[in-house]
This record gives sequence, structure tokens and C-alpha cells, in this order.
Amino acid sequence: MVSKNQKKLINSLHQKKYRKQHGLFVAEGKKVINELIEADLRLHSIFTLDASYFETSPDNTYIVTETELKSISFLTTPQVAIAIFHIPEVNAVNYQGLVLALDDVRDPGNLGTIIRLCDWFGITDLVCSEQTVDCFNPKVIQATMGSVTRVNIIYTNLQDFLSSQNKEIPVYGTFMDGDSIYQEQLPESGIIVMGNEANGISPEIEELVTKRIAIPRFGKTQKTESLNVATATAIILNEFRRG
Amino acid sequence: MVSKNQKKLINSLHQKKYRKQHGLFVAEGKKVINELIEADLRLHSIFTLDASYFETSPDNTYIVTETELKSISFLTTPQVAIAIFHIPEVNAVNYQGLVLALDDVRDPGNLGTIIRLCDWFGITDLVCSEQTVDCFNPKVIQATMGSVTRVNIIYTNLQDFLSSQNKEIPVYGTFMDGDSIYQEQLPESGIIVMGNEANGISPEIEELVTKRIAIPRFGKTQKTESLNVATATAIILNEFRRG
Repeated sequence: MVSKNQKKLINSLHQKKYRKQHGLFVAEGKKVINELIEADLRLHSIFTLDASYFETSPDNTYIVTETELKSISFLTTPQVAIAIFHIPEVNAVNYQGLVLALDDVRDPGNLGTIIRLCDWFGITDLVCSEQTVDCFNPKVIQATMGSVTRVNIIYTNLQDFLSSQNKEIPVYGTFMDGDSIYQEQLPESGIIVMGNEANGISPEIEELVTKRIAIPRFGKTQKTESLNVATATAIILNEFRRG
Repeated sequence: MVSKNQKKLINSLHQKKYRKQHGLFVAEGKKVINELIEADLRLHSIFTLDASYFETSPDNTYIVTETELKSISFLTTPQVAIAIFHIPEVNAVNYQGLVLALDDVRDPGNLGTIIRLCDWFGITDLVCSEQTVDCFNPKVIQATMGSVTRVNIIYTNLQDFLSSQNKEIPVYGTFMDGDSIYQEQLPESGIIVMGNEANGISPEIEELVTKRIAIPRFGKTQKTESLNVATATAIILNEFRRG
């Protein structure tokens, strides 16, 4: 059963402010929860229709009814369980490899896809501007499928972060007038900046970009909209990795 | 003002069955509607807060109030206008270039992204299995931003379509155990098949694939989920086009 206080806590974790305050976030569904447990994330509590779905201790496992689960779920189609986890600690950025930086990506689905791409392409550090959607937002957690535990995600003032870098580290940014990524010698280490869905890279960050790149367009018409930020990230990370 | 019959018609166009029956579909928002008009799609009628948003004839333009617009909108945040267009005719497939085929892609957002990618990479023909989400679904129309008018989208029995091809046309399919796309000589013409979100390419279609390819994974862990179908399509189309 779910107590009033537990219900209140779970509901509050919809909001970034309370996730930050409590150091907790919520995940739903057998698969996602099991992936987070396997990744050694510290479990706070779990609310499930059936305890046998998880290898957890009875101390923090609460058996609930479907109605109770529905009342605490963030999803329109509730899953068989909801768990609360402690937000893991963030590590320092490792500059030996590629670092991806996001300048105000706002859509949770896009951030989820980008985190999965980092995991796939072995990008260990993802640096997000403070206005980028929170990676512990329930929609992002559902979209990342456990990848969120395998990528070190740092929220910081992106302008300060880029300004404080060693000037020898190249900072790549995608612009319509950039040089074709097919013609570039792309290095194994450096920073790649991706911009906001509507506005691209902001002028303050643009000033800190040292290398302007572009994904060539093949369609005949000039009307084609720019690529979605998640698909552009897929293509660019692939180009950096393919060698 | 919106008549009862017009309201009934617009509501019915939520459903594929009625879109097919009437040969009509709905688009919302100034930008999307103007792009469809510019692309010479035949306009059936337009319901707008202000006629000056569009260069249309008064015959099919209806001025509506915000409340009326809200009552016919498909969106949670209604736009300034809703238009009904005639579904354009489908052309025959041109085998001189690359053809993309979708084996039961179900998510409207994924299909929308894939249509934009076709437009970007100059893929003129997109062949969809009958179970693939309808490209005139309102969510797809909103996601494609006009690209839907620049790609020839054919719905057909994919198994029959692939079986009836000239055997010399290569059929590419993505599988975890395929050959690295980085090592392949990718041709300028051929068919690329992308599979369903949950199940990938179905066994019947797999039999018709002549070349199994894969996107290499760089992350250290083997736990990384497969890539989302839209991001995988982005990477594969980029590989075919980059030469």
C-alpha cells in the first residue's frame, strides 16, 4: 500500500525543484527499473503489483494494487511498478575523449535519444546548459532505457564551461554555413556543441565555437527544414566515430 | 464559423478509414498550412482566426473564433488555423535512386522524422508496409513540416513489393549481426529496409534482404539498447550519401 506521504513524495518528483531538493527521481516499468538496479543505482523504494519482478529487499518494497499504482503513475498507461532512486553523483569531465555539449535542448524525447546515442557511440560525458531539460525528468528516464546510468551528465553554465577550456581543445558547432563534415579530419577528442530545437546554437555559445561544421543536404529543394537535433546528433557522432 | 457538417468531417479525419474514404487530410498552423499551399497541394477548406495569414480564395476560407478553432483542433495547444487538403496522388517508384522501405514503423514521430530525413538526403520514394502508421495522420503532418509533399510515399504489401523486384537491385537491411556499414561499398541505387520499433525487420521481410548491414557500436558495455529507428535511419542514409 502507498501512504499519503509516499504519494506526496512521488508526485513532487514530477518537478525538477523537488528532485533536486530530495536527490531522488522516479522510474516506471519492470525493464527500466531492473536496468537501473543492475547499474547499481541506489534504490529508495519500489511500489509494485508483484515483488517477484525484482530482486530487492522487503524493507523498501511495497505491494500495491492496480488502482494505487495508477494514482501515482506519471504515464497514461501505467506499468507494473514504480520505483524511486537516489540521483547518482556526477563525475568530473574526462577530456581525453569526445565530449558532447547541449545548448538548451528542451524536448525530453530529444534528450532521451541523445543520451542513448552517447551510450552507443561511447561518449562518456554529456555537458548540458542549465536550461536543457533535466535528465531525471520522468519522460527522459522512460526514453533512455537505462542509458542514463552509463553516461556522465553534467548541468552547468555552458558559456563558463567552454570559456574555461584549454584553448587547444577544438569546439565544434553545427551551422547551415559550416564546412562539410565529410571533408573534415575529425579528431578523437574535442567538444561537440548541439543547439536548441528552434534557435540552434545561441550567439554567446557561437562565439566560443572554434570549428563550424555542417551536414550536407542532398535534396534538390532549398525548402527542406533543418534536421531535428537528435537526428543531427546521430549523424555527427557517427562521423566522428567512423574515422 | 464552422458548420456541424464541417465539424463532423474534420473530426472524422482523425481516422485513417475516413481520410481514405474522403481523400482528405488535416493540417494545423500557419507555417505548415502555408508550406502545403506553396507545394501546390489542393486546398479543400481553411478555418482561420484571420484570413490575411494565407493567400487563399474567399470561397473556401472560413473565419472562426478561438473557441470554434479549439473545438476542431487535434492539438492540445491549438494553432491559429486548421486546413483540409486533398491527399495528393502517388507516383510510381523510381528505381534509379535509393528507395527507403519501412516494415511496420508504428510511431508517428518516427515516421515524421524519417520523412524529413528522406527530404534532406534526396530520397524521393518511401515505400511503407500497410501496417506502417499513415503519413496523413495529423501527428505525422505536424512533425514533417512540409517534407511530406516532397517525398513520394507509397503504402503497399512490402513482401510483394520486394519479391517482385529485379533480383539485381540490392535490398539492404539492418541487423545486429550485419556487416559494418563503414566497410561496405554502398551503391547509389538500391532498397534500404528499416524495421519496426520493437521487433525490427520481420522474418518474412528478412528473407528478402540480400545484404545484412549494421551500425557499429562504440560503447564499452553490451547493454546499450539498439538505436531508435529514426536515428538509425539518419546514420544509414548519411552513410549511403556521403560516398
